[in-house]
Amino acid sequence: MVEKRIPMQVKDAVDLVMSHAGSLETESVALEDSYGRILAQPLTATTDVPPFNRSPYDGYAIRSADTAGASGTSRIPFNVIDHIGAGEVSRKTLNAFEAIRIMTGAQLPAGADAVAMFEQTVENGQSFTLRKPFNKLENVSLQGEDVAHGEEVIESGNLINPGTIALLATFGYSQPQVAKLPTVGILSTGTELLSVGDALVPGKIRNSNGPMIMAQLKRMGIPCKMYGMSIDNLDESFEAVQKAAQETDCLITTGGVSVGDFDFLPAIYERMGAKVLFNKVAMRPGSVTTVAVADGRFLFGLSGNPSACFTGFELFVRPALLKMMGAEKPFLPHTTAFLSEDFEKANPFTRFIRAVYDGETVRPAGFNKSNAVSSIARGNALIVLPGGTRGFVKGDRVDVLLLGVEEGAAKWMV
Amino acid sequence: MVEKRIPMQVKDAVDLVMSHAGSLETESVALEDSYGRILAQPLTATTDVPPFNRSPYDGYAIRSADTAGASGTSRIPFNVIDHIGAGEVSRKTLNAFEAIRIMTGAQLPAGADAVAMFEQTVENGQSFTLRKPFNKLENVSLQGEDVAHGEEVIESGNLINPGTIALLATFGYSQPQVAKLPTVGILSTGTELLSVGDALVPGKIRNSNGPMIMAQLKRMGIPCKMYGMSIDNLDESFEAVQKAAQETDCLITTGGVSVGDFDFLPAIYERMGAKVLFNKVAMRPGSVTTVAVADGRFLFGLSGNPSACFTGFELFVRPALLKMMGAEKPFLPHTTAFLSEDFEKANPFTRFIRAVYDGETVRPAGFNKSNAVSSIARGNALIVLPGGTRGFVKGDRVDVLLLGVEEGAAKWMV
Repeated sequence: MVEKRIPMQVKDAVDLVMSHAGSLETESVALEDSYGRILAQPLTATTDVPPFNRSPYDGYAIRSADTAGASGTSRIPFNVIDHIGAGEVSRKTLNAFEAIRIMTGAQLPAGADAVAMFEQTVENGQSFTLRKPFNKLENVSLQGEDVAHGEEVIESGNLINPGTIALLATFGYSQPQVAKLPTVGILSTGTELLSVGDALVPGKIRNSNGPMIMAQLKRMGIPCKMYGMSIDNLDESFEAVQKAAQETDCLITTGGVSVGDFDFLPAIYERMGAKVLFNKVAMRPGSVTTVAVADGRFLFGLSGNPSACFTGFELFVRPALLKMMGAEKPFLPHTTAFLSEDFEKANPFTRFIRAVYDGETVRPAGFNKSNAVSSIARGNALIVLPGGTRGFVKGDRVDVLLLGVEEGAAKWMV
Repeated sequence: MVEKRIPMQVKDAVDLVMSHAGSLETESVALEDSYGRILAQPLTATTDVPPFNRSPYDGYAIRSADTAGASGTSRIPFNVIDHIGAGEVSRKTLNAFEAIRIMTGAQLPAGADAVAMFEQTVENGQSFTLRKPFNKLENVSLQGEDVAHGEEVIESGNLINPGTIALLATFGYSQPQVAKLPTVGILSTGTELLSVGDALVPGKIRNSNGPMIMAQLKRMGIPCKMYGMSIDNLDESFEAVQKAAQETDCLITTGGVSVGDFDFLPAIYERMGAKVLFNKVAMRPGSVTTVAVADGRFLFGLSGNPSACFTGFELFVRPALLKMMGAEKPFLPHTTAFLSEDFEKANPFTRFIRAVYDGETVRPAGFNKSNAVSSIARGNALIVLPGGTRGFVKGDRVDVLLLGVEEGAAKWMV
């Protein structure tokens, strides 16, 4: 007798998982190790930007008052009394008709209130002339004009990208506060599984889901504990799952969640006293994806089918882990694109199709039978077709979730 | 006297850089360390997929011949003689009207040539009945139907993503061959630069470009050597650059490439006998970006301005490093999107604007003055506006280069 499960809609399942995601603690890390982490403090300006009035050009710092009345027929001469580059501060103060040669980024010297760019001057040894009057603060970047000391520049919960690193460096955050990384375990179930290094034997296949999930976590910057493979025996599997769950914030298992005779996860969850959030989702692939919670820890029971396993991770595990880290943007980026091939299958459940998105159109990565196996590696996106639909054709605009843009384009497009 | 430089168009500059990118050697790495690397061998199927005829469902393996004539009014009974899960192989061979209970993924037993799903049966202890005839090979996944032994599944030059890892695991590649990572050095120039941990002093700012580029490399999975900061003195800078260039495949410097009095990179390139590919690009920001080659090594002279430095890296350094690793897709992914804000500035040169792309529309990340500083961290894309244009308005469709989708969306969109 096959157990009857009630499928939950994908959005409801996602919401339910997210509502059970707690918050991890925070820690401080060295700036050079902070790329990819989630910022756990607001990034506040610890200084004005610019930190002083500075020259945005190579030229001469002058007193604007001295330029009054300058014209092409009545050029005003200036005497150059010093020469400073960025990082240098002149010890001199400008007097009438004096100038200091100044490079981009250097602090405006005392007395100066404007900068004449080289191309606005006619130079002649230690002097130059101007042919136009300058306004007070003309060609000057004012202290604090970009950001004032104390302003919040980036909110807590943002992912630290290379630009964030630049800001953290600018403001002297050498040990930024970030969310701790969750402790994630991976346990693959199934007597059919061999290790990658094993030779094939009849009836068996190599475990590809474990290494794949490890890489999906690595893409998020999250390490994991590999709990190896559990054999399909209820008592031993229970012990293995129980131990792994106690050692992790989130245990991901693959396989064993369906209703087959050797699918022990449902019984294990029950024996652990885990609260099963759902054990059937109205999606293909991955309808058997099961998520449970025990002692405040997540138990993600992903399908043993590689495509379903991959999709279950991206749809449920990924946002849950990001929310645990306080990320403001935990979901896969979404766009829409035109289908470049027909897809006429019916979609009784919401269908997630591994797809190749080229910035404009999208096509199933494994549309042709011969691509079915390679599609798992070729896709950079998931097409999402709503449940209760059929007959999508070339040119239809469909929802697309982006899977990560580590890989680029073969051509320079602009 | 300001040196007159001739600007090169961006596309020509990119092409020129790419034409000078050599090939790095290859190495084998453990599968679990191969995520993000560039595959340096074709991924060839070392076995059929499936590796044996298998059941795609939970049900009963039968002989199709025994089902001839079955109907709702004339059900045919079968006797169950064994019970196997995935990974198990039955030692029994089916005789007439015998069946073996079989789970999804298990190898078809000897004698069987079809599978009846549970829902197609009426079970009764150790037997069941069928109400319809089955075709030969009905509900059987055939050995090799997805991929045949020896087929090339993924070409050399692809980035190893989580799906690639799954395929490598499936086919037993425990030590895949990948491109070696380039040795990249970063050297920041400028007397104005302080380290991140330093307190500010008059005229100085903290070095943000060095840590930022380190993170841009890290996003590509490439480590780097930090050569710290060189002071603005020609002889000492020359020694520092010369030494760093000899120790790396690619040396990235920041600052010192303009035409200011203390911009020593042009003189250093000359003294090194480096071939300068270009020292002015028709782009904003980053028009002073300079790329040179010496002894087959790249010298990337990026602007000291953080936005220009960032853009110069993504446009020139990134694809060059990827090409050195043999990547088939070295360029930033491209799409188009509707501007959600006016951008009326003139673009005498091609303009690259740090932007926020939401999958449909795009807007400059630092459009308002108050966002100028934070834009470097907020952007996930670059808007590209062609040189010689002006007056882009809300609703215009513009070119967009995507910068990486580490960060996601705040909302679940489908």
